[in-house]
Amino acid sequence: MRGCRLLGVVAAALLTLGSAPADEPGLAGFSDQSARVERGWEAKFRAIPDPANLRAYVKRLSARPHAVGSAYDKDNAEWILSQFKAWGLEAKIETFDVLFPTPKERRLEMVAPTRFVAALQEPAVAVDPTSGQTKEQLPTYNAYSADGDVTGPLIYVNYGVPDDYDRLQRLGVSVKGAVVIARYGHSWRGIKPKVAAEHGAVGCLIYSDPRDDGYFEGATFPDGPFRPNEGVQRGSVMDTYYVGDPLTPGVGATKDAKRLPLKDVTVITKIPVLPISYGDARPLLAALSGPMAPEAWRGALPFAYHVGPGATRVHLVVKSNWDIKPVYDVIATIPGSTKAGEWVIRGNHHDAWVNGAEDPVSGQAALLEEARAYGELLKQGWRPKRTIVYCAWDGEEPGLLGSTEWAETHAAELSQHAVAYLNSDSNGRGYLEMEGSHTLEAFYNDVARDITDPESGVSVWKRLRLHRIEDAKTAEDRKEIRERPDLRIGALGFGSDYTVFLDHLGIPCISLGFGGEDEGGIYHSIYDDFYWYTHFGDTTFVYGRALAQTTGTAVMRLADAELLPFRFTNLADTVDLYVGQLQKLLQKERDEARERNLELEEGVFAATVDPRAPLLPPPAEAVPPHLNFAPLENAAEALAHSTERYDKAVAKARANGGAGLAGESVQAVNATLMGIERAMLDPAGLPDRPWFENLLYAPGMYTGYGVKTVPMVREAIELMRWQEADEGIVRTAKVLAGVAAVIDRATTALEKTDM
Amino acid sequence: MRGCRLLGVVAAALLTLGSAPADEPGLAGFSDQSARVERGWEAKFRAIPDPANLRAYVKRLSARPHAVGSAYDKDNAEWILSQFKAWGLEAKIETFDVLFPTPKERRLEMVAPTRFVAALQEPAVAVDPTSGQTKEQLPTYNAYSADGDVTGPLIYVNYGVPDDYDRLQRLGVSVKGAVVIARYGHSWRGIKPKVAAEHGAVGCLIYSDPRDDGYFEGATFPDGPFRPNEGVQRGSVMDTYYVGDPLTPGVGATKDAKRLPLKDVTVITKIPVLPISYGDARPLLAALSGPMAPEAWRGALPFAYHVGPGATRVHLVVKSNWDIKPVYDVIATIPGSTKAGEWVIRGNHHDAWVNGAEDPVSGQAALLEEARAYGELLKQGWRPKRTIVYCAWDGEEPGLLGSTEWAETHAAELSQHAVAYLNSDSNGRGYLEMEGSHTLEAFYNDVARDITDPESGVSVWKRLRLHRIEDAKTAEDRKEIRERPDLRIGALGFGSDYTVFLDHLGIPCISLGFGGEDEGGIYHSIYDDFYWYTHFGDTTFVYGRALAQTTGTAVMRLADAELLPFRFTNLADTVDLYVGQLQKLLQKERDEARERNLELEEGVFAATVDPRAPLLPPPAEAVPPHLNFAPLENAAEALAHSTERYDKAVAKARANGGAGLAGESVQAVNATLMGIERAMLDPAGLPDRPWFENLLYAPGMYTGYGVKTVPMVREAIELMRWQEADEGIVRTAKVLAGVAAVIDRATTALEKTDM
Repeated sequence: MRGCRLLGVVAAALLTLGSAPADEPGLAGFSDQSARVERGWEAKFRAIPDPANLRAYVKRLSARPHAVGSAYDKDNAEWILSQFKAWGLEAKIETFDVLFPTPKERRLEMVAPTRFVAALQEPAVAVDPTSGQTKEQLPTYNAYSADGDVTGPLIYVNYGVPDDYDRLQRLGVSVKGAVVIARYGHSWRGIKPKVAAEHGAVGCLIYSDPRDDGYFEGATFPDGPFRPNEGVQRGSVMDTYYVGDPLTPGVGATKDAKRLPLKDVTVITKIPVLPISYGDARPLLAALSGPMAPEAWRGALPFAYHVGPGATRVHLVVKSNWDIKPVYDVIATIPGSTKAGEWVIRGNHHDAWVNGAEDPVSGQAALLEEARAYGELLKQGWRPKRTIVYCAWDGEEPGLLGSTEWAETHAAELSQHAVAYLNSDSNGRGYLEMEGSHTLEAFYNDVARDITDPESGVSVWKRLRLHRIEDAKTAEDRKEIRERPDLRIGALGFGSDYTVFLDHLGIPCISLGFGGEDEGGIYHSIYDDFYWYTHFGDTTFVYGRALAQTTGTAVMRLADAELLPFRFTNLADTVDLYVGQLQKLLQKERDEARERNLELEEGVFAATVDPRAPLLPPPAEAVPPHLNFAPLENAAEALAHSTERYDKAVAKARANGGAGLAGESVQAVNATLMGIERAMLDPAGLPDRPWFENLLYAPGMYTGYGVKTVPMVREAIELMRWQEADEGIVRTAKVLAGVAAVIDRATTALEKTDM
Repeated sequence: MRGCRLLGVVAAALLTLGSAPADEPGLAGFSDQSARVERGWEAKFRAIPDPANLRAYVKRLSARPHAVGSAYDKDNAEWILSQFKAWGLEAKIETFDVLFPTPKERRLEMVAPTRFVAALQEPAVAVDPTSGQTKEQLPTYNAYSADGDVTGPLIYVNYGVPDDYDRLQRLGVSVKGAVVIARYGHSWRGIKPKVAAEHGAVGCLIYSDPRDDGYFEGATFPDGPFRPNEGVQRGSVMDTYYVGDPLTPGVGATKDAKRLPLKDVTVITKIPVLPISYGDARPLLAALSGPMAPEAWRGALPFAYHVGPGATRVHLVVKSNWDIKPVYDVIATIPGSTKAGEWVIRGNHHDAWVNGAEDPVSGQAALLEEARAYGELLKQGWRPKRTIVYCAWDGEEPGLLGSTEWAETHAAELSQHAVAYLNSDSNGRGYLEMEGSHTLEAFYNDVARDITDPESGVSVWKRLRLHRIEDAKTAEDRKEIRERPDLRIGALGFGSDYTVFLDHLGIPCISLGFGGEDEGGIYHSIYDDFYWYTHFGDTTFVYGRALAQTTGTAVMRLADAELLPFRFTNLADTVDLYVGQLQKLLQKERDEARERNLELEEGVFAATVDPRAPLLPPPAEAVPPHLNFAPLENAAEALAHSTERYDKAVAKARANGGAGLAGESVQAVNATLMGIERAMLDPAGLPDRPWFENLLYAPGMYTGYGVKTVPMVREAIELMRWQEADEGIVRTAKVLAGVAAVIDRATTALEKTDM
């Protein structure tokens, strides 16, 4: 910005853009003096990451398949350990023993009206050297599928989410006793067999439609990045009552942990599931008769999509070896100099379904380069105030096993010591994908303002902001983006290693990674490898460098701040937004139910039915009652007041160069601040899934990846459980009041610091 | 409704539905007594149409290909004439001589990177007996394409409308010197070569993507109704400076009419055009490289759609025989008993591109059955007050030739005598497609309330209303549908024989037809034949009967009303709606230009470009000025006042049983009323196309089929011609003031009738 002014760039651009704090001497949580020191170290840090190293790490770690239990998985863990040590970090491997099923038998055949046996095999590609490592590749399968041998009519269920079954009901199609075929997308894959089983299906196929990540999106591998005819997405289908090792919910899967018998495990699917390619799906879908699939259900295969059922019957066999396998978490530590009892934790998993150059090695490489850079800084005399913990997790793919078991094992320490957890996973070209706890929203924005985007040369924050302006649907949305000082960050759902930290332990999290410009179709296939990544991904590793720069800067700043740089007004603003959303959601459901009932009375559905494409009327619905949102509204308002008071106390503490922040008594404030995200937990947890204790964020029971904020209330409204919604409002309000109380304590403590 | 009450049906349904005027003794424009008589005759009429006859007519008329100039075209005309006569109607054939080009040479080949010669041929289908009448079928072509022999790189331009070229510019792709390939849809097909030529293309292919009417929509012919691999949509690509015979704009193409030399004809395309099947398009599109087509451009062929250009070059040859051919309009008349100088005209074309069972024979059959029914009623003593004119048009497909030349020939008489023109064309299953002049909106609604839908058993009006409620996008839209007494009817654009009547002569029009439930993909192909129609269309001809019932009722009611049943408050309400739309349109363009310019200043486009998929920034745009809408607002308000006064006068005249309506002096009122739609004409016509004189309705210059209401203002705003917009506001306001003045005269005359 300063440079712009010197160059005489038009004032309009400056006026319309938020001025970047990079211009300011201050840094949130730092006195002026320590901010200057910090900025010096951060600049040194950001100069270190080197794309050539990232390339070398990716090549090494993705050289062979390295799923949980494989030889190369262990080899990678040991190599990572050796790297950490070589860079001068304390490091060790922590091992856990987890349930990890692998394929024993897989068979899929169409038995009527014609016979077809699915290949269930991804062929090697000549130009791609690692695609032929057949012996070490896990076959295409869905981990934690129930064993089964079933035969039934085939029915196409679109994405297989609850709305799709509502539509099937109107089409007069029941999946009872049938094998359903769902396409990947629009939900965590485990939702598909779960909902199918709830509707009486006996088996479930999940295929990748070329509409979603195949030729419809672009040229297919190896000519382009998208999914080829035989490509299959492996993946876990574990249900989400809890995450981590299925046998040890809530406790670490140590050698002597008490384990559930397999029969008592609730997170294994009720019916057999198998993922298939669109090459294998094509003859099955083409053979379907019955009603035409609704327009939005149709994919890009070159025929008319029918729902079934008809003469098409399939025979599906899925059987697994239900073995216990070791997972190897590599944990490195840089002890804090003055606040060693406060831990900044950063993680990325190292296990993959196959070679996993993108998922997860592209993120793991950044983590390693950050660690190497700290080694360099340590040699130059840098000492973080807080303890930094770097974690290369194993077993993420099957069910966040490594991170969950580690965090459950160390739960008490983490509750006491953890300041924040920073996660990454796959990385690519494009925009910083900003998600996390809203206590860290302002902090995350500040970090993003300091990182230069490799393609555009502007900060990654500015590029994202301009992208959001370009993509905004309404003038109101654009106005907010232009006027709000910080970009809103998304809440975290499910799908990577932050889950246990955020949802189970109440540790503030942020998720980092770049993406959006290099979509592909090799996810969880043998083609996610070094050849693909260096031809179609972040081929020059400049976004790998940007990820290391972003994450490393965030870790250092969190580790070095005198006062922990949370900003609670962003949290209060977000809570207020959520409460408004919930009220709108209820109103929408009320309006929709009233409208639907009115249309039933008017005879809309009966009069407009096409006899050649019959559609049953939807069922009449009770109009949802009004709910008493007052407890939440009052709690949100009280929270806002508390956060404003805290902000004033911070401003006061930062006055006169913020010398007061450097004092001893700020330690007490920090100790209190660490309790704030913890206060979002309710030990009783969510209904039906007590492992999830956070009442502000949770993955959706019927979306999986998708987050549900204020989950107890939101899901109750969506599932029309009014008593639960009422209870959720009260319990969430209580939790928010608790958060406000901790903020008040921090304010009081801050007001007493020796300024 | 009365029956419902007796049956004790819930009151809610009665309260929420507009009560159908069928319950009332009165009929707009009729005294109570004559209304009773009229209802009696109408009921008799509606009992006559017989699906078996409709089936026989369709079979006869579609038995052989019958395009303009073919033997069977003439044979059909003579057969229709004989039928009219056999039913006791006066009838004759009027012949015109028109320019009708037919293929002399057609060739399309890919010359690089590989060689491929397009088949340009629709194969016969074994189960379909008329599909093999190869000798009589017109080859696949676009009539009025320029002759040409061109070679150039191939570029895919989506639907080939102006917005698509804006996108191409941002993609950095120029069509200069190229052959473009556009898909059918989203515009009148003639727009595609027009816009392509404006951008420098040398040739144009138009293909039917399976996404739009092929397998994506459902099973293909002969297994289902949709377009098979080799199916081709023939059609005219004439530009729309005027319609009718290209050599005789504005005058009838009689034997001795003065004709333009071919070189001076402006409506022939500037570049050669050829329609092709998706079978022929597939290798061409698959060979394209260059940028990926934007997502909305991608069709349902099973590969990645690229825009080009690349190595793909095509060679296109189109040459026509530029012959003069006769068209045979069959005109039947039932003379009016007391108001013979007032003509109610009804038409449907009889020519087809090939066999045309759906287009146009399904509509022509209804017209014939109406005529037969009148013959029956005449025998029973019915005598229409007004003269009824039935027209079986020839030459509609090439360019509305038969109707336009007839109307231009008889322009003076029509201006004096025509009350209204009622058009139909293709007919199918589903909903009444209500379009027309808003002076007839209330009348059309009343007729629709009296027709029973064959599938649902409710009135076609009620079914359409419920369908619109079901389809409405917003609660506001649903509220309007539920509260407004009449369903809004669409304004008429272009695409069938009403055009000359409405746009050139200012005669109120309505367009009738059923559809929406039996889409297909045989439009303008050899497969639009009796086999297709009796397997996939209105197979039992019950909607053919409904069309005959609807149109016949409308014709009789218009012919028998004492006072012409226009209702001008609907017109005023619609004009008010349009004026509001124009203001919103300008505001939207202002907002968009401002937003785009702001984003350019902010650097949005530069910062968000993906270097692997470059997109140029859009050009900066001057923000549209404010326009002075006051003249239009004042005119709309004055019109509303005039219409209210007229309504009061009608109410007064209808008081006491409406005996006054039967008097002699109402004749003067009717004569005045016939001038009202004429007053919408401005003899200067629209800018660049003076043939189009109606300032309320016109087809869009760049949409073709799509109507532009208040066209001089709307198109000027869209094309950013501000002076023209200002002028358009003034001229349209003047025309509306003229309309109001004629209504005032009618009011005054009505107030003087001998009640």
